Amino acid sequence: MIAIRGDRLLDDLRTLARFGGLSPGVDRIAFSETDLVARRWLVDKLAAAGLEAGLDRVGNVLGRDPAAAKAILIGSHTDTVPRGGWLDGAMGVIFGLEIARAFRESGTSGPVGIDVASFQDEEGTYLPFLGSRSFCGTLRDGEIAAARAEDGATLTAALAPLADAPAPFRLDPARHVAFLEAHIEQGPRLEASGKKIGVVTGITGIRRFRVTATGAANHAGTTPMAMRRDAGAALVRIAAWIGEAFPGFAAAETVWNIGAMAFRPGAANVVPGEAEMAVEIRDLDVALLDRMEQALAERVAAENRGGVAVAMVRPTVVAPTPMDPSIVAALSAAAEAQGHAPVLLPSGAGHDAMELGRVLPAGMLFVPSIGGISHHVSENTADADIVLGCQVLADAIFRIMQKMS
Amino acid sequence: MIAIRGDRLLDDLRTLARFGGLSPGVDRIAFSETDLVARRWLVDKLAAAGLEAGLDRVGNVLGRDPAAAKAILIGSHTDTVPRGGWLDGAMGVIFGLEIARAFRESGTSGPVGIDVASFQDEEGTYLPFLGSRSFCGTLRDGEIAAARAEDGATLTAALAPLADAPAPFRLDPARHVAFLEAHIEQGPRLEASGKKIGVVTGITGIRRFRVTATGAANHAGTTPMAMRRDAGAALVRIAAWIGEAFPGFAAAETVWNIGAMAFRPGAANVVPGEAEMAVEIRDLDVALLDRMEQALAERVAAENRGGVAVAMVRPTVVAPTPMDPSIVAALSAAAEAQGHAPVLLPSGAGHDAMELGRVLPAGMLFVPSIGGISHHVSENTADADIVLGCQVLADAIFRIMQKMS
Repeated sequence: MIAIRGDRLLDDLRTLARFGGLSPGVDRIAFSETDLVARRWLVDKLAAAGLEAGLDRVGNVLGRDPAAAKAILIGSHTDTVPRGGWLDGAMGVIFGLEIARAFRESGTSGPVGIDVASFQDEEGTYLPFLGSRSFCGTLRDGEIAAARAEDGATLTAALAPLADAPAPFRLDPARHVAFLEAHIEQGPRLEASGKKIGVVTGITGIRRFRVTATGAANHAGTTPMAMRRDAGAALVRIAAWIGEAFPGFAAAETVWNIGAMAFRPGAANVVPGEAEMAVEIRDLDVALLDRMEQALAERVAAENRGGVAVAMVRPTVVAPTPMDPSIVAALSAAAEAQGHAPVLLPSGAGHDAMELGRVLPAGMLFVPSIGGISHHVSENTADADIVLGCQVLADAIFRIMQKMS
Repeated sequence: MIAIRGDRLLDDLRTLARFGGLSPGVDRIAFSETDLVARRWLVDKLAAAGLEAGLDRVGNVLGRDPAAAKAILIGSHTDTVPRGGWLDGAMGVIFGLEIARAFRESGTSGPVGIDVASFQDEEGTYLPFLGSRSFCGTLRDGEIAAARAEDGATLTAALAPLADAPAPFRLDPARHVAFLEAHIEQGPRLEASGKKIGVVTGITGIRRFRVTATGAANHAGTTPMAMRRDAGAALVRIAAWIGEAFPGFAAAETVWNIGAMAFRPGAANVVPGEAEMAVEIRDLDVALLDRMEQALAERVAAENRGGVAVAMVRPTVVAPTPMDPSIVAALSAAAEAQGHAPVLLPSGAGHDAMELGRVLPAGMLFVPSIGGISHHVSENTADADIVLGCQVLADAIFRIMQKMS
């Protein structure tokens, strides 16, 4: 048993929230001056907890347990979206700091220690998951050179202040045995169920599609219905089919969305000559995603008639990342031991654990998001839920260590 | 029988097309210098044809037959949309000029003469149907003072160069017995049917609706389907219903359109929190328009559930304007006499005849639009079809005059 100290945990979280603090909310986008100052503060905190800590050339912070040859890595990210919340990412990092401290204070010793990481630019200001992908060695040649923020600023320029920092830290397969990440849920399920702990079964895969229709823009008063080539009507039929047919394909946790729809030229009295919509589907099951994509592609092809050309492209595919079953079991057992039956659920949002989970056994714990809100200054979680989450994560890590020894 | 001269008609049309001419196409927006110069040219042409002609303070050109106490008014407009075509409006005005000349040359005399008008700003650069509404006395107080072009320019400033012109010409109920307007079809029906003459049964009424939905924008990965308040999905269901149900309400000539659809915030991974669409319906039959509006309102109200507020407003109502049955009969008989069975059809687009038809017996003749195109530099009609249209209009006017005498 490792007993964390809730007061210290909350103090550190609140201190970190002052870097870029908006009260409420935090603006600490990757590579901003506040982000780098916060990362250096974290290095000092990790060092004070007895870890060998540093900031590498891509902005990753890593603290290593100097007494252990193997380690469980705990981490998340300390960068935020613009005008974001104080917990998204930060909470998982400070959980790592607190658990490393509590582990050391407990006098527990064994072959497996605790390392702590804050990965850079999880939020994708320049390149989503830059830090975790650098750490896992999965960045492709040229990705850093090509990456730009929305305002046009290059990642290369953002990296310049770190030119003298150590070479990028890398996952050490001989050392790192597992990755654990705690995070706010960013959804409404825990709050709606009245439960305090979510254990993530996997991070869903994403298929994102752009469906376009090209017909002919015509005067809506003078063009008889039978002579129209209405691009908008074609997409409405496909969108309505999605609403009616997708529930028949879906598993309990499948989600989909038509997030964007636009008709052009977009005037009340002009038959739409062009139309476009964005569709996405998320699930853990690749075979199910394949079936839904296939059905959508067939429905799109069937609409390709009557002088309207309908086409579908797939700009985004993210493979699902299942969490490690033994870590899921350890997190669940630790929640039960604290008197809290866990909710097992997929993560529909991406996390650093998605990148780490592809190369290491990984697990994630969720705490409730008040109102399901995140990426907003009002993002919050009850203090007691934050403390409980950290204690459950500490217990789970203790259980994983016991299994290993 | 009044025999028009096709060569002279085409010459005048081509001369007029040089004012603001783009070759092809014409840019002669209301109150531009080219518009006013073209209107002064028209005054001279009408005077040369023996009419008492002038340009009034709102930009209307009127030529009056000095020998007649009563008159059939022939007209349309000589202003265009930006980068528009050479026939939209201009053709109907030059038909009037040619028929007035041909009438005079024919030596025909009787109690009813021919007046010719070019109304100002039919296209609504500042105020749609400004000229015909001024002529009919249906402008409301303050409309001129409030009217602005899209670029912010005021109608008041546009009127300044005409400050010394005569007071606005007015419809004279004791004089004007009928209004006749010839126009390009601006649609595909004549071309598709292989017919040359369209006789307009009426100008359709328009009901335009804005349907809005307000739900909640949420993360499309973390928000379960059952917990969403998806504004976009609500509008898709209504739009799909329109496509399925409206044909059951519609008469043969009814048209409707969903011209605009937008989801906000409009990102692939965000459930739409707000959505909006523009719906319009056009028909000659007010009772049918009422039934369709009622059915749409009920369908919209039925979607107002599950945490999504759906509402409908009606920013635009235009009453239908039936054409005068005896004028429809005269135009049809004149077409038959020229060996061309007419197509009887409603006008789904607005015209000056809509304003005049509310206060005078009115009729419209259409000639084919090549490719159904208008409001574009490529707008065109075969020369032979233009000449035929003018001859049919002249014959119809002769028939109407004979009935009156």
